[in-house]
Amino acid sequence: MPEFRKRGKEMVDYVADYLEKIEKRQVFPDVEPGYLRPLIADSAPQDPESFEDVFKDIEKIIMPGVTHWHSPYFFAYFPAASSFPALLADMLCGGIGCVGFSWLETVMLDWLGKMVNLPEEFLAGKDGQGGGVIQGSASEATLIALLAARTKTIRQVQSEKPELTEAEIMGRLVAYASDQAHSSVERAALIGAVKIKSVPSDETFSVCGSALKKVLDEDKAAGLIPFFFCATLGTTSCCSFDKLLELGPICNKENIWMHIDAAYAGSAFICPEFRHLLNGVEFADSFNFNPHKWLLVNFDCSAMWVKKRSDLIGAFKLEPLYLQHHHQESGLVTDYRHWQIPLGRRFRSLKLWFVLRMYGVKGLQEHIRKHIRLSHQFEHSVLQDERFEICAEVVLGLVCFRLKGSNEVNEALLKSINDAKKIHLVPCHLREKFVLRFAICSRTVESTHIKFAWQHISQLATDLLKTWGQNHHQQ
Amino acid sequence: MPEFRKRGKEMVDYVADYLEKIEKRQVFPDVEPGYLRPLIADSAPQDPESFEDVFKDIEKIIMPGVTHWHSPYFFAYFPAASSFPALLADMLCGGIGCVGFSWLETVMLDWLGKMVNLPEEFLAGKDGQGGGVIQGSASEATLIALLAARTKTIRQVQSEKPELTEAEIMGRLVAYASDQAHSSVERAALIGAVKIKSVPSDETFSVCGSALKKVLDEDKAAGLIPFFFCATLGTTSCCSFDKLLELGPICNKENIWMHIDAAYAGSAFICPEFRHLLNGVEFADSFNFNPHKWLLVNFDCSAMWVKKRSDLIGAFKLEPLYLQHHHQESGLVTDYRHWQIPLGRRFRSLKLWFVLRMYGVKGLQEHIRKHIRLSHQFEHSVLQDERFEICAEVVLGLVCFRLKGSNEVNEALLKSINDAKKIHLVPCHLREKFVLRFAICSRTVESTHIKFAWQHISQLATDLLKTWGQNHHQQ
Repeated sequence: MPEFRKRGKEMVDYVADYLEKIEKRQVFPDVEPGYLRPLIADSAPQDPESFEDVFKDIEKIIMPGVTHWHSPYFFAYFPAASSFPALLADMLCGGIGCVGFSWLETVMLDWLGKMVNLPEEFLAGKDGQGGGVIQGSASEATLIALLAARTKTIRQVQSEKPELTEAEIMGRLVAYASDQAHSSVERAALIGAVKIKSVPSDETFSVCGSALKKVLDEDKAAGLIPFFFCATLGTTSCCSFDKLLELGPICNKENIWMHIDAAYAGSAFICPEFRHLLNGVEFADSFNFNPHKWLLVNFDCSAMWVKKRSDLIGAFKLEPLYLQHHHQESGLVTDYRHWQIPLGRRFRSLKLWFVLRMYGVKGLQEHIRKHIRLSHQFEHSVLQDERFEICAEVVLGLVCFRLKGSNEVNEALLKSINDAKKIHLVPCHLREKFVLRFAICSRTVESTHIKFAWQHISQLATDLLKTWGQNHHQQ
Repeated sequence: MPEFRKRGKEMVDYVADYLEKIEKRQVFPDVEPGYLRPLIADSAPQDPESFEDVFKDIEKIIMPGVTHWHSPYFFAYFPAASSFPALLADMLCGGIGCVGFSWLETVMLDWLGKMVNLPEEFLAGKDGQGGGVIQGSASEATLIALLAARTKTIRQVQSEKPELTEAEIMGRLVAYASDQAHSSVERAALIGAVKIKSVPSDETFSVCGSALKKVLDEDKAAGLIPFFFCATLGTTSCCSFDKLLELGPICNKENIWMHIDAAYAGSAFICPEFRHLLNGVEFADSFNFNPHKWLLVNFDCSAMWVKKRSDLIGAFKLEPLYLQHHHQESGLVTDYRHWQIPLGRRFRSLKLWFVLRMYGVKGLQEHIRKHIRLSHQFEHSVLQDERFEICAEVVLGLVCFRLKGSNEVNEALLKSINDAKKIHLVPCHLREKFVLRFAICSRTVESTHIKFAWQHISQLATDLLKTWGQNHHQQ
């Protein structure tokens, strides 16, 4: 125990040092896959090693392979949240080490739901039918929503047409999502063993009501049973928004479960000026966003709400005796076992509690607004340079851009950026176009980093275009 | 940042104090459900609160509701692992906060696989076809194994009988598990939309080959397609072991995926004297145990191995451009996205690295052996008291026992134990019998705690039986 006091404090200093000086580390590692094997023993040691031995290997063995997600030069994917209050809460969570603690979770999800102004029906309150739960990821949330919808629909169809077997019904169920939706939606359908179809998005990469209506009509005419639509707010590719106010009434009328995946964008809805992007949530059955992306709560913390808890519980409930407890039937206890895939769970609500209190709503709004300001700064720089174009409306913290020209020249530009390893970006495809994604990620990123990143990209483009013209005549 | 250095060290001290003095806390809370709502604001604060404000609420608001899983008086469920090396590693994991880091994970799962002497085929090595992955829980591992088996079987059947649709095949698939198996197996089948049947266990609560053979023959005769069997090593109820050496060859012959769930028991296989319990693993397709239960690695860390990585990857692979990377096609990188349900993942292998090195294999063996010694100490006490009986063979750290007599008197005994709140136990049913489970859980539990627990139980039994005879004539 004295050892833990000593080493724990050294680790606090190490983590503080790491984050304080992260800017000086190369954002993307130099090592090649397989670098680790020769550095590390083939099997576990028989005798204990000292903390010092392990500790010095962090810099020697681990760090050379780490991509520094919290570097202010990291602009890839979407943000991975990190903050001191969340780190402190996670230390406490590990120390207590209990399996689940649902009471705080219910209250924290109500807090968070109120922060994004969710309709009352999604809150647990004192006697609501809805409520929130922390999942590990948006993928899990989507899967669970799809499974709940599947069970609900099978039961409904069976009560109307008792001659159909479950397998026959399953064979006719269809789920839908935008052609811009995250791959996890397709995966959820794969796991749930139901068909899934892409709904074509419009020229702004959003799904509108008429597009959904069209595929629904076709599928119903073919004898299929539409049962689930996953709307995306803030797609991964370009942060586009499906048109909830058109889609919601269609889903309600057709008795289709509407799930909203706002994994990244959802955190922005705590700012009143962005809340309109969530209008239409009142038509949804379930809603999810990831505080572990953009709300400074370290991974994992994916917040999910449903209007009817009974829909989730109905899909999963199984009761062996060793898991029964005294208050089970009272309705007072939220038993999250029935809300998720794993049975055990970490005490993740502590992170929300620390972060929401130590930042306050205003502090979190500032964080969101800073990121959006910086994305517009980058957008502005791109627009000033007539060699480049912006490929999708910049709404939140993501800028999709490219050199006017071929996919090949843009692939070459991205390669030169990532080979230089001063900043890190990933690409996406928008229709047939290869596009560079510039996502504002780090908690500590500032205007100067954006300025540097743009100058760097611009210079690499200049260097590239100098030789590109000679070697690629189509340019 | 200076704030984090200061507060982080205070938190280290708080956690150290908590664990050092945990024995003095009442193991099970006094509060009733709903106690939290009146103590906590209705919504998140607008302005930041100080760390002190949050910190002082830990004792005031959180602790009164906590069940102290690491108290040496906690004997419920199964152990939840906790150790200082794992806590230190989790601090580092949070600090780095990167999404996944697969290289260390592959090596650590090889280390762990070698520790339990898994057949070579399950290891990744330099160019193996198998390998390990860290899942969040045994429930996830079971689900993923079942899904991989489902996809593999559907493809096989389709290639043999192209006239069958996927829905028709799905309607005929059957999974199997012991009637003693964990509820998560049934849930996996529910999610995967396939039938599941219980195989009757024998008088030692183990499934033997003939029992499986019988249901397989019946089901095949009825036109069903058996595709998955989940064997349990160390059931949750009474820590019984299915007979792998009989079951494995049947599964192999019938082309049924055999998954082994050794969630709790698996850690014991690092001791040569218990390794024989795993004999027959060579017939399995996948194997799972939870270092976060009994190997001192804090939750979550559930280790899963497969013989053929391609089976898992085949079931899940989906490739949007923004997730493609340079080394994708080289086969050098293990891309765990295709091995699990969530897309993101914490850097969980750090915990294994710290724990395996700082304890060494010998240190971990000592931990396991101490627990098993203590369970036999408790068993011995029970056997000395002729009012009691042992209900299942004590193999590892779990003792199932009861008063000779009715279920009612045993329910009353459990209630009096848990109402006294000096120790905490949960029950199970073995066939028609209500049974008390005494699981050795805490890392710091010692012989004196076992002695105290037994004397306490024995005294409560005496008190109970004094009045019970007057009020319950059947006694």
